[in-house]
Amino acid sequence: MNKLFIIKIGGNVLDNPEQLNSFLKDFASIREPKILIHGGGKIATHIGNQLGIASNYVNGRRITDEHTLDLVTMVYGGLVNKKIVATLQQLHCNAIGITGADGNMIKAVKRPVKDIDYGFVGDIKPGDVNTPLLHVLLKQNTIPVFAPLTHADGKMLNTNADTIASVLSIALSKHFDIRLIFCFEKKGVLHHVEDENSVIRHITQNTYTSLLQQNVLKDGILPKLENAFSAIKSGVKEVLIGEANDLLKNTGQVTEGTLITL
Amino acid sequence: MNKLFIIKIGGNVLDNPEQLNSFLKDFASIREPKILIHGGGKIATHIGNQLGIASNYVNGRRITDEHTLDLVTMVYGGLVNKKIVATLQQLHCNAIGITGADGNMIKAVKRPVKDIDYGFVGDIKPGDVNTPLLHVLLKQNTIPVFAPLTHADGKMLNTNADTIASVLSIALSKHFDIRLIFCFEKKGVLHHVEDENSVIRHITQNTYTSLLQQNVLKDGILPKLENAFSAIKSGVKEVLIGEANDLLKNTGQVTEGTLITL
Repeated sequence: MNKLFIIKIGGNVLDNPEQLNSFLKDFASIREPKILIHGGGKIATHIGNQLGIASNYVNGRRITDEHTLDLVTMVYGGLVNKKIVATLQQLHCNAIGITGADGNMIKAVKRPVKDIDYGFVGDIKPGDVNTPLLHVLLKQNTIPVFAPLTHADGKMLNTNADTIASVLSIALSKHFDIRLIFCFEKKGVLHHVEDENSVIRHITQNTYTSLLQQNVLKDGILPKLENAFSAIKSGVKEVLIGEANDLLKNTGQVTEGTLITL
Repeated sequence: MNKLFIIKIGGNVLDNPEQLNSFLKDFASIREPKILIHGGGKIATHIGNQLGIASNYVNGRRITDEHTLDLVTMVYGGLVNKKIVATLQQLHCNAIGITGADGNMIKAVKRPVKDIDYGFVGDIKPGDVNTPLLHVLLKQNTIPVFAPLTHADGKMLNTNADTIASVLSIALSKHFDIRLIFCFEKKGVLHHVEDENSVIRHITQNTYTSLLQQNVLKDGILPKLENAFSAIKSGVKEVLIGEANDLLKNTGQVTEGTLITL
């Protein structure tokens, strides 16, 4: 099977034009087929404040009301996505910006209201991905760049970028040897959370269990690892958690970040 | 050759949700291959005012400075484009939102500064269109929905939607029998500008010359007609100027608006 890199870049890099440009330069230079998923960044909150759209959080999670939906559609789907695409074009990488609505690429279900009404938030699963169209785009050497938005019933929906990256990886895992790379602000999963030199280079299902028993892993990294193992168990070959700066090392044979396999 | 409808919808319909939904319902029901190009609408000015981005005009034409570029990228490429795409998806029309940067679909040249610096405005010609990728999308039954934006040198550029519609039509005219439809607020080109019943049903190169000599045509319609004849002379089979409401009539054999042919 052909190799495919599915790479997620988070908000902190998006908020820093220099870091973003450096990251995109590295991304453009990857020779293998690749897909980029970007998060939101603080710019949505910043523009929202100017527009009088307050950010509402319940239990630390953003509530997407009608105004917030318009805001994230503009900022993630327009401003952030198109800046990335235009920059990649300049770097001779034929990027194409995509939300879940475009080409029906990811059809979601609006999150059901239980204790909390999250508003216009989309829940997705691998069966919701239009993989034939993704194959067509990749075959044309166009590089999909996903904004963290999906759709249902004529509405855009706000959707977590990590989740989109995982779901795309699982959906494409039958046809590609996938390495799913989560770029974040640290070198990798750390033995000692303050020591960037303590990267755990390789985690398997077995070592994960013993790390959990040893209480080495801090709260912040647990959702990422759960996400990673859920992808691995569903057919994704490798997940890598590392720093955006290290992208080119982390697409190679000898990686800098944390490699996660079965 | 296969028929292809290239349809441009202007700002006034975009600003009215009811009219827009009705138009999109009609658009979705067209069975032949089709492409939509949308303009901007007043929402960009409205959001710009809230963000403190003033609209600057010189000789009646908008100047696109850096802040205005961000504004139109957000509003045209994000908010307006994705709302249209999500609505079309609900209508079972597999729309895909596209700016000139996406898939390098339309590469522009930033307008050279002469007497006036228009700022980040893109000038385009038919050779700048990535027709192979458009063919691929149409073959997949995905329906391109263009926002009025192009790109050059890593920057998005503001570009007139009428021009994009003409340039796309010319670029695809070798492979399709194209009817380019400009939807605007009147029934068609009118003999008497106040009388909606005075639509001139058919204009050819010859009748155009005599209409000009008779001074029948008012200033507002002349740029549209020049645009139309430039398309016709470059291989586009038919141009139609008519009302958004009449879209389904104007895609048929017997049209309501003004049909323009060689």
